[in-house]
Amino acid sequence: MIREVGLRDGLQSIKTVVPTEQKKAWIRAAHAAGQREIEVGSFVPAKLLPQLADTAELVAFARTLPGLFVSVLVPNLRGAQDAIASGVDLMIVPLSASHAHSLANLRKTPDDVVAEVARIRAARDAAGARTLIEGGVGTAFGCTLQGHVAPDEVLRLMQALLDAGADRVSLADTVGYADPRVVRELFARAQAIAGDRFWCGHFHDTRGLGLANVLAALQTGVTRFDACLAGIGGCPHAPGASGNVTTEDLAYMLGSMGVDTGLDIDALLALREQVQSWLAGETLHGTLWRAGLPRTFAGVRHAAA
Amino acid sequence: MIREVGLRDGLQSIKTVVPTEQKKAWIRAAHAAGQREIEVGSFVPAKLLPQLADTAELVAFARTLPGLFVSVLVPNLRGAQDAIASGVDLMIVPLSASHAHSLANLRKTPDDVVAEVARIRAARDAAGARTLIEGGVGTAFGCTLQGHVAPDEVLRLMQALLDAGADRVSLADTVGYADPRVVRELFARAQAIAGDRFWCGHFHDTRGLGLANVLAALQTGVTRFDACLAGIGGCPHAPGASGNVTTEDLAYMLGSMGVDTGLDIDALLALREQVQSWLAGETLHGTLWRAGLPRTFAGVRHAAA
Repeated sequence: MIREVGLRDGLQSIKTVVPTEQKKAWIRAAHAAGQREIEVGSFVPAKLLPQLADTAELVAFARTLPGLFVSVLVPNLRGAQDAIASGVDLMIVPLSASHAHSLANLRKTPDDVVAEVARIRAARDAAGARTLIEGGVGTAFGCTLQGHVAPDEVLRLMQALLDAGADRVSLADTVGYADPRVVRELFARAQAIAGDRFWCGHFHDTRGLGLANVLAALQTGVTRFDACLAGIGGCPHAPGASGNVTTEDLAYMLGSMGVDTGLDIDALLALREQVQSWLAGETLHGTLWRAGLPRTFAGVRHAAA
Repeated sequence: MIREVGLRDGLQSIKTVVPTEQKKAWIRAAHAAGQREIEVGSFVPAKLLPQLADTAELVAFARTLPGLFVSVLVPNLRGAQDAIASGVDLMIVPLSASHAHSLANLRKTPDDVVAEVARIRAARDAAGARTLIEGGVGTAFGCTLQGHVAPDEVLRLMQALLDAGADRVSLADTVGYADPRVVRELFARAQAIAGDRFWCGHFHDTRGLGLANVLAALQTGVTRFDACLAGIGGCPHAPGASGNVTTEDLAYMLGSMGVDTGLDIDALLALREQVQSWLAGETLHGTLWRAGLPRTFAGVRHAAA
């Protein structure tokens, strides 16, 4: 299962502001191509991220598409209250395992974020809402500010998030520091802790290892990954660097290995062209689009009806 | 161990003709960065590949560098005689497991190539030369002309090459059709047949799976891979497609996993910049160069003295 995060992680990192109607067309086409989980935006103050100011409207639209699981990012209780009100299926609360990165980006320590998740859980339960809470542990493999991030600290924070009431947890290589060996080690330990509540691997392709890291994670039993169509996005600490793993490349890798992603890769490639036209001047990533599918591709070609 | 094939597989696929002095500077710098096996060219008629007409001179130069294992490609007995005379350490004879591809590109059936390898072995032994013979089985994962290539046929041809006198064999995903699952299956079977004589995996990054395929091969015990600095090269059947796996990205992946490649990655990145200046207008590939090494990189940074 691939969660599309291009509309959030991708668009928040680039200058172009995509109009709401284009985002809706993107979501509609992604759903038609078989995508069943899409992160449509973030409930943050519009003055901080004007690109994502239409999140509530996108959640409402996405919820009309049959079978689509809709998620958003929320930085705090205020955003979580908006998310609960929007009727979204899942809200992701980002935590940075690097204390330096956490203070610089969130102005909170990681344990402050854990405490906020407890408040979000209380608010969700008090509202009688079904919105799931995902605690996303970022900079899980290191950080440009702090350098090394200890795996024990990453796992302590993951456990703390679960204890605070997160329904799910995930691990993110925010700055592209992971390699297949450490992915295997950390993901195996993370699943031993979180079991079925370990939801997702989130890799950036900053240094070209995105798909190799996914492969390593897949070998530990993880089957859910975040990805961005056309690999959009980037890293504020590495100008020109790639963003997330590219959706269509990941779908191709999984499909060719016989993993049924339910995705129509030709439709994703067509959507990529469309999105590319909306993002003129932005640097896109990915490789499959250049050569197209091999003639022998035996993976899923057409989305289920 | 990474074999640099940029000077052959890379340069033969692009228009720019790199002057001999620049190629020597490339070989010298690659050696200084720790590369210990370089394919410097191909003994083919100069009218077919004028880019590689200086192969004999490059072999002579490369042999002066201490500890450098020098290889070339030879399409036939005529080329092999030149290779033997040049004093090169290894000559690679390409065979295409796809009959359609073999006829279109080599104007021979795969079994004609096996017979040629037997003649090359006889000539080598008659000359009392020590030049090793590698039988390189290409289109081992499929082909743009024929589509599917049966693994049984790939392995039959590999065995036939060994029987005909090849000292080593290798498998190549010539057109970027491999995926990690089939790599694992085929490489495990190939090693069961060839053992220590299985020399090398050769992957193209045509559809973004190059490093993931290397990782899969590595897990079967293969530790030698071909790669091109800056990912130069391409595929005549897929305009704009990437060439081989990128040397510096592969060195980074292996180094970060704790595999000692002996390579100085900073020196490789500096060489990439140099080669880029010689190849103005050509499309280069790779990802690491955009962001550079992570601060936490603990792999080998400096070539052994």
